[in-house]
Amino acid sequence: VRLSEGVEWGLHCATLLALLPPGVAMPASKLAEYHGVPEPYLAKHLQGLSRAGVVESVSGPRGGYRLARPADEITVLDVVEAVDGGEPAFRCTEIRRRGPTALPDSAYTRRCGIHAVMLRADEAWRGELRQQTVGDIVRSLARTASPAAAEKGVAWLASTLAR
Amino acid sequence: VRLSEGVEWGLHCATLLALLPPGVAMPASKLAEYHGVPEPYLAKHLQGLSRAGVVESVSGPRGGYRLARPADEITVLDVVEAVDGGEPAFRCTEIRRRGPTALPDSAYTRRCGIHAVMLRADEAWRGELRQQTVGDIVRSLARTASPAAAEKGVAWLASTLAR
Repeated sequence: VRLSEGVEWGLHCATLLALLPPGVAMPASKLAEYHGVPEPYLAKHLQGLSRAGVVESVSGPRGGYRLARPADEITVLDVVEAVDGGEPAFRCTEIRRRGPTALPDSAYTRRCGIHAVMLRADEAWRGELRQQTVGDIVRSLARTASPAAAEKGVAWLASTLAR
Repeated sequence: VRLSEGVEWGLHCATLLALLPPGVAMPASKLAEYHGVPEPYLAKHLQGLSRAGVVESVSGPRGGYRLARPADEITVLDVVEAVDGGEPAFRCTEIRRRGPTALPDSAYTRRCGIHAVMLRADEAWRGELRQQTVGDIVRSLARTASPAAAEKGVAWLASTLAR
């Protein structure tokens, strides 16, 4: 079980967009440059984030992407599901209905106990991601990033936005 | 993000093995027949379960697989990790170290905040699966399976073990 790298990219992009001044947008090309990732693939995930209402695109010469709502109102789960979809990691294929002991579908009125356990774990995972917002991540980065990294990031942002 | 179907198969096999009388083993061919899944693929997962110490193989004419310890001492997580591995679903590729603001590795002394959030969610998922045992699943099936399904399963088991 592995999440796509788009999840990592999407979370980093949402975090960077949360640092922009209100109303300011950043083009996909700049988001790709900052993160050192290929623009065509990133663009696909930005479109997913846009469809999910996490970011919005602004057209025009100073256009690009910006968060669609305040960073404290975007959960990590919003971003993860926008990129990866909302389906549980465990897919029940109802194998209890196969083989020599199979019965007509009408015999299976209750959810399989194995499926139920896996769904509860999935909900625990989502619950944890629902409790954290992009705003929380920004604040945690402010605490954990090295001063040199923060300085370089701010300088890059300033020169990029000044263009 | 999707778990392999081997996880579903492994959990169903462990549940069936938990229903066998003490000391009795079931060949991979019968486990495959009962679940209506292809034996070669199932055999691969049974070997994984065996390597992880969840099941053990018994050789000889009445050989096959049996649980390596009581069902109440095998967690759902034991089975899931035996089949799927223990790596977190989110893989951090450290994209913060790429692009125009990258610094030498020595600047990154603390874990990235995004990685930390994703690891906490992964731990919540594993924690939930660690709280449930194969024994719990057997008891939940006893409550949720239809009487007709239970009857047919018991009859199949009896005739298979009598051979």
